[in-house]
Amino acid sequence: MKLASAIIDGREEAVWVSSQGYVAISRVQEYFGGDNASVRMNQILENPGLLSQLREWTHQITRKGIDLTISVTSLLAPVPWPGKIICVGLNYRSHAQESKMAIPESPVLFNKYNNAVCGSKSVINPPGDARQMDYEAELVLIIGKSGSHIPEEQALDYVAGYCNGNDVSARDLQFRSGQWLLGKSCDHFAPMGPYLVTADEIKDPDNLEITGWRNEEIVQHANTRDMIFSSRELISYISRYMTLSAGDVIFTGTPEGVILGMPSDSQKWLEPGEKISVEIQGMGRLVNEIGAFRA
Amino acid sequence: MKLASAIIDGREEAVWVSSQGYVAISRVQEYFGGDNASVRMNQILENPGLLSQLREWTHQITRKGIDLTISVTSLLAPVPWPGKIICVGLNYRSHAQESKMAIPESPVLFNKYNNAVCGSKSVINPPGDARQMDYEAELVLIIGKSGSHIPEEQALDYVAGYCNGNDVSARDLQFRSGQWLLGKSCDHFAPMGPYLVTADEIKDPDNLEITGWRNEEIVQHANTRDMIFSSRELISYISRYMTLSAGDVIFTGTPEGVILGMPSDSQKWLEPGEKISVEIQGMGRLVNEIGAFRA
Repeated sequence: MKLASAIIDGREEAVWVSSQGYVAISRVQEYFGGDNASVRMNQILENPGLLSQLREWTHQITRKGIDLTISVTSLLAPVPWPGKIICVGLNYRSHAQESKMAIPESPVLFNKYNNAVCGSKSVINPPGDARQMDYEAELVLIIGKSGSHIPEEQALDYVAGYCNGNDVSARDLQFRSGQWLLGKSCDHFAPMGPYLVTADEIKDPDNLEITGWRNEEIVQHANTRDMIFSSRELISYISRYMTLSAGDVIFTGTPEGVILGMPSDSQKWLEPGEKISVEIQGMGRLVNEIGAFRA
Repeated sequence: MKLASAIIDGREEAVWVSSQGYVAISRVQEYFGGDNASVRMNQILENPGLLSQLREWTHQITRKGIDLTISVTSLLAPVPWPGKIICVGLNYRSHAQESKMAIPESPVLFNKYNNAVCGSKSVINPPGDARQMDYEAELVLIIGKSGSHIPEEQALDYVAGYCNGNDVSARDLQFRSGQWLLGKSCDHFAPMGPYLVTADEIKDPDNLEITGWRNEEIVQHANTRDMIFSSRELISYISRYMTLSAGDVIFTGTPEGVILGMPSDSQKWLEPGEKISVEIQGMGRLVNEIGAFRA
């Protein structure tokens, strides 16, 4: 099942992305005799019973050919208000090498805040003093269950879904101090989407093709099996230190092919008007445009 | 006005800390003819009108000697669900020197997540593999208004209040990778409180005595005027990159006197049973105990 978030009648609502179009979850509930109160994605993630109920209902709607679709002009990030945005650095050997950094012995964690969250088609306006704008195509895990000290073999039970993410980075800000946060969490530096795919439809998160585009050119192409720390290992490791909660998201790191990794004399940083895209198999395509630099 | 958060009848509620005791904000509202629905701190921070109304109402209650106090057994952090927890590293010259790190030319920013938030008297149970537990007494700014590109001279208009914070750190985890997050955001590593003091009662945040205790011994003592980047400068700087929102908090950095700063042969890291405390003038005393290491 594909789920997204959108503004409908001025309110944030979760929507089902069917083969016919978008269907508000509140409309699905209403159709099956529930009330029509709007439902946000975080409410679904915090309620696994609702998630399985929705799976059943949407199957019925498909089987019966019922049309409940509505017009949606733009999507938010599938999880517009993550509890945490945990990012993993240098998690592909090839990317650590191109960045001229050591292969990490344990996951390198950093963060973005919710001001960075945006959806597909959002324009990213970099801060006025950022000069070195870069992309990072990544698989994002969406947590659906609280836990700490999660064993690796149970880790995927804690994942509600997956989506494309772009760990947009201003390299000059990232390296201004030793801590990367400044160049990672500017407004709109964490696009996700266009939708999430629920975990039951992803057989193996460790075997997904991931592709990153700069405009019409493929600049990153890898498979998540090349990650140094797998999704299971990341969840287990992080949860030894921080309790994970439904609605948290994990950006799992980017493969090689970013601008930072190019020889310095051929680094052409992103400019206004350029498009950056991420596509992981089955998860649609996340497209964002670099807008004008802010004042 | 001093405001705190507590669990009352099973629900999180904001409370007024009067000279007589604790008064639920919902009770204050009800007394003045409003309804008695529970009010959370984030609702107050997002509603400056309510904050000034409360100031007027609590004055009246004090003047008339009305007793609306209730028994509260334990306090949460004053802001139990910050939007962002932005932390500033190495913001006192003396602390940068004792840490053998360069005096920063711009603010060094890192983060904690909400799993780290706890109130005064909370016990902090470190992760099982943390060995180098340390304290950091800090002034915390509580943001009360959204903004980006905030000029320094208006920055304090965005502060709703102030409180004590302890930037609890596991140094071995902090330095395991180049990114400090792991050692900064373990569960309960961001105690705040016991209450916040509204901004109208703090004449100058750049002239506050700050004291840190380890058990009964004063180990940190400084004045916020020694900060390299003042509260105004921090708010202005951060807001150039990230939109600040009501309910965000900023840990402004710690002065010298932490265990990390001691000669390595005399570093005695915190052990279970030890108490760490922070007191900034007028803001009460934040006291936390190190508990057993987790499995």
